[in-house]
Amino acid sequence: MLSFYDEIELPTGKSFEVIDITDQINRIVERSALKEGLVTITSLHTTCALAVNENEERLFDDIRNYFLTIAPEDQPYKHNDLHLRVNIPPDEPENAHAHLIAMMLGNSETLMVHNGSLVLGRYQSVLMLEMDGPRQRKCAVQVMGRS
Amino acid sequence: MLSFYDEIELPTGKSFEVIDITDQINRIVERSALKEGLVTITSLHTTCALAVNENEERLFDDIRNYFLTIAPEDQPYKHNDLHLRVNIPPDEPENAHAHLIAMMLGNSETLMVHNGSLVLGRYQSVLMLEMDGPRQRKCAVQVMGRS
Amino acid sequence: MLSFYDEIELPTGKSFEVIDITDQINRIVERSALKEGLVTITSLHTTCALAVNENEERLFDDIRNYFLTIAPEDQPYKHNDLHLRVNIPPDEPENAHAHLIAMMLGNSETLMVHNGSLVLGRYQSVLMLEMDGPRQRKCAVQVMGRS
Repeated sequence: MLSFYDEIELPTGKSFEVIDITDQINRIVERSALKEGLVTITSLHTTCALAVNENEERLFDDIRNYFLTIAPEDQPYKHNDLHLRVNIPPDEPENAHAHLIAMMLGNSETLMVHNGSLVLGRYQSVLMLEMDGPRQRKCAVQVMGRS
Repeated sequence: MLSFYDEIELPTGKSFEVIDITDQINRIVERSALKEGLVTITSLHTTCALAVNENEERLFDDIRNYFLTIAPEDQPYKHNDLHLRVNIPPDEPENAHAHLIAMMLGNSETLMVHNGSLVLGRYQSVLMLEMDGPRQRKCAVQVMGRS
Repeated sequence: MLSFYDEIELPTGKSFEVIDITDQINRIVERSALKEGLVTITSLHTTCALAVNENEERLFDDIRNYFLTIAPEDQPYKHNDLHLRVNIPPDEPENAHAHLIAMMLGNSETLMVHNGSLVLGRYQSVLMLEMDGPRQRKCAVQVMGRS
């Protein structure tokens, strides 16, 4: 069994943003030179998510609108009562809604490598979702399998 | 490390449908002859999902009703303005709600193989969820591990 | 390829509860002695979930409030019409909402092991979510990789 570990840096530009990272994942699979196996991609943050879906600009707007409608930013979340929490950094944001959306979407994806290529359907892309940006974000990527 | 790749074809019959694919996955695990490892199952579509839950007919109705209530079909989604999108096939459906539900549920599952069997709790089944059918669907399945 | 399988027992104390199981997972990774690989954690139940997010007491309250608001316990779910179902145990609870929340959150997580340690961001913990407790619950854990 061989394994290959890497991290990708993702500067995000908006408070809520969907970013297609399929090309970065494909390059890591290629560099790993593995032919059969799994690629695991994990956001290392609690207010980002990963998903596999279609890269379509207007759908990205729907995703933002939809999740901010079912988990609105301005509800009376307890996590946002910063004065009642201990040991928080001075720049702690009010981002409970972002945690909830991240949990619904999930923070990792496990995909297959078959014949040396990432297995994705025709309209599938690997998407990283920022819910509390802009920030500098990081995803861990591991390819595990055989050459 | 050994790996075994297969695909399952799933014709769906309704616009929203929950299909138990546990038997198909068990057969693939058996054919792989692996004793310890992982099985990854991925829908190759952006309007289908995979989940692990109970195979109970009335719960399947609740699943359909619930997700079509929190993500209704007839909202003014931008992805459904087909005339504003480019390079779309002539039969492109208005299915933004199906993309959103698929993202919430997730499009893959990674399960364990232990002592040659799929590890599932007593009431757990592997479910494929169609949200934009009826269509011919496909799932990729990979068993990776040791004999 | 080496693999290591274990199960963790989790007695839950409330109807809806979020439990940090990161320490248990870290101990299993340590006992496996694997250096590079994957850890898969699966709830063996249909009304529990797993997630990776922040261990913060007030956020745990938000998680409970949020999911019980978007999937309330007392809706007319068909799965809760126990008199219309067959082959159910005498103590079958009315828990359709718990199934729906579990499906949204997902019942497993696949994390990486790199340099002998679980790969998690600074604020990330592995969380087990009970939605139909209190009960005795069980999670399967598998570490697969190389030493």
